[in-house]
Amino acid sequence: MTRKLYVLNGPNLDMLGQREPEIYGTTTLADIQASVERLASEFGFELFFAQTNAEHQMIEWLHDAFRDAAAVVINPAGFSFQSVPVLDALRMLRVPLVELHISNIHARDIVHRHSLVSAVATAVIAGAGSFGYDLAVRAAHALSR
Amino acid sequence: MTRKLYVLNGPNLDMLGQREPEIYGTTTLADIQASVERLASEFGFELFFAQTNAEHQMIEWLHDAFRDAAAVVINPAGFSFQSVPVLDALRMLRVPLVELHISNIHARDIVHRHSLVSAVATAVIAGAGSFGYDLAVRAAHALSR
Amino acid sequence: MTRKLYVLNGPNLDMLGQREPEIYGTTTLADIQASVERLASEFGFELFFAQTNAEHQMIEWLHDAFRDAAAVVINPAGFSFQSVPVLDALRMLRVPLVELHISNIHARDIVHRHSLVSAVATAVIAGAGSFGYDLAVRAAHALSR
Amino acid sequence: MTRKLYVLNGPNLDMLGQREPEIYGTTTLADIQASVERLASEFGFELFFAQTNAEHQMIEWLHDAFRDAAAVVINPAGFSFQSVPVLDALRMLRVPLVELHISNIHARDIVHRHSLVSAVATAVIAGAGSFGYDLAVRAAHALSR
Amino acid sequence: MTRKLYVLNGPNLDMLGQREPEIYGTTTLADIQASVERLASEFGFELFFAQTNAEHQMIEWLHDAFRDAAAVVINPAGFSFQSVPVLDALRMLRVPLVELHISNIHARDIVHRHSLVSAVATAVIAGAGSFGYDLAVRAAHALSR
Amino acid sequence: MTRKLYVLNGPNLDMLGQREPEIYGTTTLADIQASVERLASEFGFELFFAQTNAEHQMIEWLHDAFRDAAAVVINPAGFSFQSVPVLDALRMLRVPLVELHISNIHARDIVHRHSLVSAVATAVIAGAGSFGYDLAVRAAHALSR
Amino acid sequence: MTRKLYVLNGPNLDMLGQREPEIYGTTTLADIQASVERLASEFGFELFFAQTNAEHQMIEWLHDAFRDAAAVVINPAGFSFQSVPVLDALRMLRVPLVELHISNIHARDIVHRHSLVSAVATAVIAGAGSFGYDLAVRAAHALSR
Amino acid sequence: MTRKLYVLNGPNLDMLGQREPEIYGTTTLADIQASVERLASEFGFELFFAQTNAEHQMIEWLHDAFRDAAAVVINPAGFSFQSVPVLDALRMLRVPLVELHISNIHARDIVHRHSLVSAVATAVIAGAGSFGYDLAVRAAHALSR
Amino acid sequence: MTRKLYVLNGPNLDMLGQREPEIYGTTTLADIQASVERLASEFGFELFFAQTNAEHQMIEWLHDAFRDAAAVVINPAGFSFQSVPVLDALRMLRVPLVELHISNIHARDIVHRHSLVSAVATAVIAGAGSFGYDLAVRAAHALSR
Amino acid sequence: MTRKLYVLNGPNLDMLGQREPEIYGTTTLADIQASVERLASEFGFELFFAQTNAEHQMIEWLHDAFRDAAAVVINPAGFSFQSVPVLDALRMLRVPLVELHISNIHARDIVHRHSLVSAVATAVIAGAGSFGYDLAVRAAHALSR
Amino acid sequence: MTRKLYVLNGPNLDMLGQREPEIYGTTTLADIQASVERLASEFGFELFFAQTNAEHQMIEWLHDAFRDAAAVVINPAGFSFQSVPVLDALRMLRVPLVELHISNIHARDIVHRHSLVSAVATAVIAGAGSFGYDLAVRAAHALSR
Amino acid sequence: MTRKLYVLNGPNLDMLGQREPEIYGTTTLADIQASVERLASEFGFELFFAQTNAEHQMIEWLHDAFRDAAAVVINPAGFSFQSVPVLDALRMLRVPLVELHISNIHARDIVHRHSLVSAVATAVIAGAGSFGYDLAVRAAHALSR
Repeated sequence: MTRKLYVLNGPNLDMLGQREPEIYGTTTLADIQASVERLASEFGFELFFAQTNAEHQMIEWLHDAFRDAAAVVINPAGFSFQSVPVLDALRMLRVPLVELHISNIHARDIVHRHSLVSAVATAVIAGAGSFGYDLAVRAAHALSR
Repeated sequence: MTRKLYVLNGPNLDMLGQREPEIYGTTTLADIQASVERLASEFGFELFFAQTNAEHQMIEWLHDAFRDAAAVVINPAGFSFQSVPVLDALRMLRVPLVELHISNIHARDIVHRHSLVSAVATAVIAGAGSFGYDLAVRAAHALSR
Repeated sequence: MTRKLYVLNGPNLDMLGQREPEIYGTTTLADIQASVERLASEFGFELFFAQTNAEHQMIEWLHDAFRDAAAVVINPAGFSFQSVPVLDALRMLRVPLVELHISNIHARDIVHRHSLVSAVATAVIAGAGSFGYDLAVRAAHALSR
Repeated sequence: MTRKLYVLNGPNLDMLGQREPEIYGTTTLADIQASVERLASEFGFELFFAQTNAEHQMIEWLHDAFRDAAAVVINPAGFSFQSVPVLDALRMLRVPLVELHISNIHARDIVHRHSLVSAVATAVIAGAGSFGYDLAVRAAHALSR
Repeated sequence: MTRKLYVLNGPNLDMLGQREPEIYGTTTLADIQASVERLASEFGFELFFAQTNAEHQMIEWLHDAFRDAAAVVINPAGFSFQSVPVLDALRMLRVPLVELHISNIHARDIVHRHSLVSAVATAVIAGAGSFGYDLAVRAAHALSR
Repeated sequence: MTRKLYVLNGPNLDMLGQREPEIYGTTTLADIQASVERLASEFGFELFFAQTNAEHQMIEWLHDAFRDAAAVVINPAGFSFQSVPVLDALRMLRVPLVELHISNIHARDIVHRHSLVSAVATAVIAGAGSFGYDLAVRAAHALSR
Repeated sequence: MTRKLYVLNGPNLDMLGQREPEIYGTTTLADIQASVERLASEFGFELFFAQTNAEHQMIEWLHDAFRDAAAVVINPAGFSFQSVPVLDALRMLRVPLVELHISNIHARDIVHRHSLVSAVATAVIAGAGSFGYDLAVRAAHALSR
Repeated sequence: MTRKLYVLNGPNLDMLGQREPEIYGTTTLADIQASVERLASEFGFELFFAQTNAEHQMIEWLHDAFRDAAAVVINPAGFSFQSVPVLDALRMLRVPLVELHISNIHARDIVHRHSLVSAVATAVIAGAGSFGYDLAVRAAHALSR
Repeated sequence: MTRKLYVLNGPNLDMLGQREPEIYGTTTLADIQASVERLASEFGFELFFAQTNAEHQMIEWLHDAFRDAAAVVINPAGFSFQSVPVLDALRMLRVPLVELHISNIHARDIVHRHSLVSAVATAVIAGAGSFGYDLAVRAAHALSR
Repeated sequence: MTRKLYVLNGPNLDMLGQREPEIYGTTTLADIQASVERLASEFGFELFFAQTNAEHQMIEWLHDAFRDAAAVVINPAGFSFQSVPVLDALRMLRVPLVELHISNIHARDIVHRHSLVSAVATAVIAGAGSFGYDLAVRAAHALSR
Repeated sequence: MTRKLYVLNGPNLDMLGQREPEIYGTTTLADIQASVERLASEFGFELFFAQTNAEHQMIEWLHDAFRDAAAVVINPAGFSFQSVPVLDALRMLRVPLVELHISNIHARDIVHRHSLVSAVATAVIAGAGSFGYDLAVRAAHALSR
Repeated sequence: MTRKLYVLNGPNLDMLGQREPEIYGTTTLADIQASVERLASEFGFELFFAQTNAEHQMIEWLHDAFRDAAAVVINPAGFSFQSVPVLDALRMLRVPLVELHISNIHARDIVHRHSLVSAVATAVIAGAGSFGYDLAVRAAHALSR
């Protein structure tokens, strides 16, 4: 039976690759989705990959995940630091939850340093750039076996 | 030319697998070393893998790494939270530094929650259990290309 | 003339009764709505009962309440702790405002302990389980006479 | 078999109704007691209703309650904010404990905002005026069934 | 070539002029929009003027502004104090950003005193009432020349 | 009848234009005074424009302003952050008070981030460079009508 | 008509003069009472002078004072720093309240430095030794005229 | 000449042995008193052993101890954390003062972690259960020789 | 031999009686000086009474006082809260120092609540209005005998 | 079968008795060891008594104790306050752990006041001088039966 | 060409040598000036040595130093801890700045422990007594070569 | 008789001159030792100059210094900020102690800003680069005469 993997992306991540490509590179979220799909399929996951700027949309995807996910990977972006509604939706999950940040948030300014989400995550990966998605899917696979 | 990878382990990690195996499992640091060796060799790394309970030993390995490492993976364990000498030695490095914690430190008590090391690491991985070493070596490989 | 009572429910409350029924019981928000309707009608209130995961939807219902409510009961859930937009919308109200929490938030973790909403509420009820809705409607009735 | 309900009142509550009646109204603690008695009897409770300005007296009533109460309602007043001896006596209880405040303490000055008692209460009711006693007895009844 | 000016308004500002007109006056957001249009056109700006209660809508307008704005004026209202997603969208901008508050937030309660947005704004204007929009457009004009 | 406008400048502002002109530009306080005079006269203000490095001089000008000002604009510079004597003199004023900072203090280091003066100002303008004087005089005019 | 003056003394003040007389002198509370009586009578006050180690006794004297005092002088001693019940009883008073400390509490250790009582007192006198009682009675007289 | 030893017990300790005997054991305060008496007599102490829930009673016993004790052992229980009157009475003592806690308060919640009393005690013993009384009497004996 | 008494007044006190006389009364600093002169002369003091808005002037008077004062009364006004230079000059004194505030600073806003000066004063008097000068001179007399 | 007791001493304790003997007395660590040996043998313990200035040495003795100790007494000295590696090694222990300090650390400066170790100790003894070793061995005996 | 060295002294330093000579010694600021002159001349510096109690005077000397100093030594005394105007004047300097304190401020009370000036100084010297001037001139010489 | 001077260097200082010579220069610790030897010998000191990465080694050298040093200079490097064992060893010293930092730690990040050692040092020198060793030896000489 296929296991379902959710890879959920928070606000402003739709701008990846368009915003200052000389600094952040030209990898877009679509590129990331393509490479996540390859790895997920290799591990036998059915993949749900999506991005939203809306808190309520993220919450509803998490309610879906509560019902049928084998594992959840989330890059909560700006929801990491103050969104208690997202935190509460994440807390419901009973499957491995991997929190992912493209940059190393622990080395950033005070507003972006402490993710609320980390307290309910199973594993946290930060600072590995877009390659972090590869690591996160591997972690989701290992932790959900 | 082979690139040298340091995988350094801090205090009390020599007790992995001996301490409460019904909880922490029976994986020892030697088991981890074996599996890290396979992956490192696959990526073409020459591996230096070691553990110490002594701060000065860790510092001296980091001085070595300053001279010849292509990447460093560190599980600083108890040195994470207050060892400024280790922090200063890490800050010298000019190659990718991956910080690794077996448990999710962000969800622990106040003493173990904020690693000083994270502010100078390139990437941080926590909570993936001993599988985290696999992820950390992959990250070291990707970041040092 | 009928007086209008708003009973508004914040994020994740649509999951009541579905989530771990062996712990939280099988009472759903629909069950609560039914029993609130009986009591509201007994007190001569016209009832508006609704739930949303979207902050902007909650704000717009509060703008409606600003225009025609005799009293407002709110279970702000995750909006309690950081939503200044909801707080500002609540602050406009000039009728009794009863804040309701199913669990005793004062005994919870640091993130969930201090509701911003309480500073603008008339009355606060926490920890009485789903029976808290019964108490809140009674309070709204008593305070709005 | 009758169940025993304790309704305990802390310091300065003996002044209710005498102090600035044009502001606080003319409801006295005796009036409240009368209405609590009617409701308690309706729910089949045997009522112990009392007020004290002395911390040790409050502690001793709580020791009594430890022995025979089915539920406890307490308006701790000035004992809420710093009396660890009262807190410790409350913590012993193994029956529902309803904490009651006439005003909304969460909207008051910093000294009166954080009740220590809330961390050990089952339910908390604040800001509903003297009507809060009605709500508290209902909560005690519902929670102790 | 016309330069595009965004004037963006956050939650609850749709209630200006309807809420307690004897206190806040009868100036509505539509009145403000009319006078902003006159001044913007005088300075040769093409104007985009809008209000939303939804965080995701604000973020998406800011993504648009990232692509074609010559300057941005924002009255973030309740998003000022905790919305990291809006903050992150603002941080992307590479044109002058003028933050505007109708009241003097620096003289308000602790929740409303420190705007996160100010750290990424070019200029901040607070306390000048609805006349602040006039000042903000002038500042946007001067800073974007 | 002419209305009197005070534009008062605090310590170190006499160095404007002399200090690192390649960074701060060559606009001097005398240039600013000239342009403020034009605008003030256009609005029918009699202008008192002055600068001092001495706290007692600033206090005495504020005592004068208490007697005859229609509005006060102050760039308190280094007096913003710790001078309670200046704060107390400002608090006496019963006319509009516009606080002005050339740079955006809210984005500066911790010492320069929170102006005490803001709590007693009517309006605050920061970050618009020397053009901020133009905005401040306009605000003083609008607020004092 | 005689006016009634309460001079109330908190815990441990019964030990004045017995405790280390070589340091604190041999002035006892009885000596102080004698000299307070002379001054009070000179000002036409009827005097109630008393000391207690019991919080509830202090509260009950303050309830009496609420009914018939023209002025109250209190040396709250150890009740100054954490007794919210005494604070609440003091807050009821509608006559001048003079808080008195024999030593200069503002120069003491952190536990004894911030008196809660000062926030509700009319005047505060500290550090003048037992002569402070003379000053406090004079202040009570001047403030109650 | 016999030396007098005070062993004083604070609030709620009269409930030892009655409260959850399956957890706290069935040792009562009377049992402890019996064993303390044997050891005190062995060391040649005259023993005063007592318990109270009333702060003023504790203060008065400490005034007695000030007059004739050779050493004082106190289990301040709930008075440890906020009772400045008890702290002040303890500070008067000029003989060895041993503070005793049955549980290890340093490992408890934030309210019960920092005893004010420790700053004026000679020695502190915590976490040794009821055997701590044995240790405390030995310490009192050794320190008062 | 006459003893010299300094009564020193800090910034903004020259405005007493001119500023909102319907609120603060019409008592000016000159009136206060006159009444202080009478009392000082009665106690046999030679009086130096002065006011300044300049920190350096206050410091220099304190240097004078260091040389010949028998006692010093200071109303530091705005210098109380942050002037370390004045604090250091006061710390030199080896005669009684009475700190005086017309209002009860302990009940004011956070900026005006904690006087640095109190830590080096002998006695502190606050909240007794202009009558406080009478009390302060009496305290200076009693403490300097 | 003999039970093994570890008595471990941290940094600088090798200087006991040599350092200012007129203050600290002439009792050396060797004297203490001698008296601990007598008491340990009386209780049937096999004793391991040692001192080190090296954190890694302490950790390794604790690993030994993890394998064969019946109880551990530790005077962690300077390791108490910031050594997370020692803390982590102590946390492994599943036998009674008695923490001992010669002085009363709770009455010391802020750096030496809060021992991290206390949170994982079974019992804590401080301030009884070198006699504390006697108490600690008795506690270890009682707790390990 | 001679290089100009400023040695600037803040408030209360004019009292050196007059104030408690049995404690602080009889070295006056004039003595220090004489010895600084010898050393400065040996290093080829033209010396400007001055003291002031007035903040504005210090600022103006720093404006002079901005124009022609090769190095600046400042003993800011009481200006160290809160004078932002002096801090801002110091920040302008583009030559070596040596901050000097006669006593070791890092070991003093909380008010005198953290100098704002240190954040903008090149070097900081504290606790070497009046010999610190010798060290500071040497540092100014070495750093300005 | 020769006096003995200890110059002790903490962790990572063995890397001076090897690490980024284009930034930190090519001065090595050996170069510094050579120049310190010249100056020490000029002042008649016998020199002990050493570096270690091991905390216990530093402690043991300080025990030696306790026995025979005339003065101690320490560059504690990473031990400055959290090593209580080193702090305790330093506190034993009864000779002048000069703390030295090559960079100005007061201007660094929060982890490196507050040295624990400063509270027990006689003098502190920071920010003068490797020339600071020259200043420190001069200070040690002057303070130990």
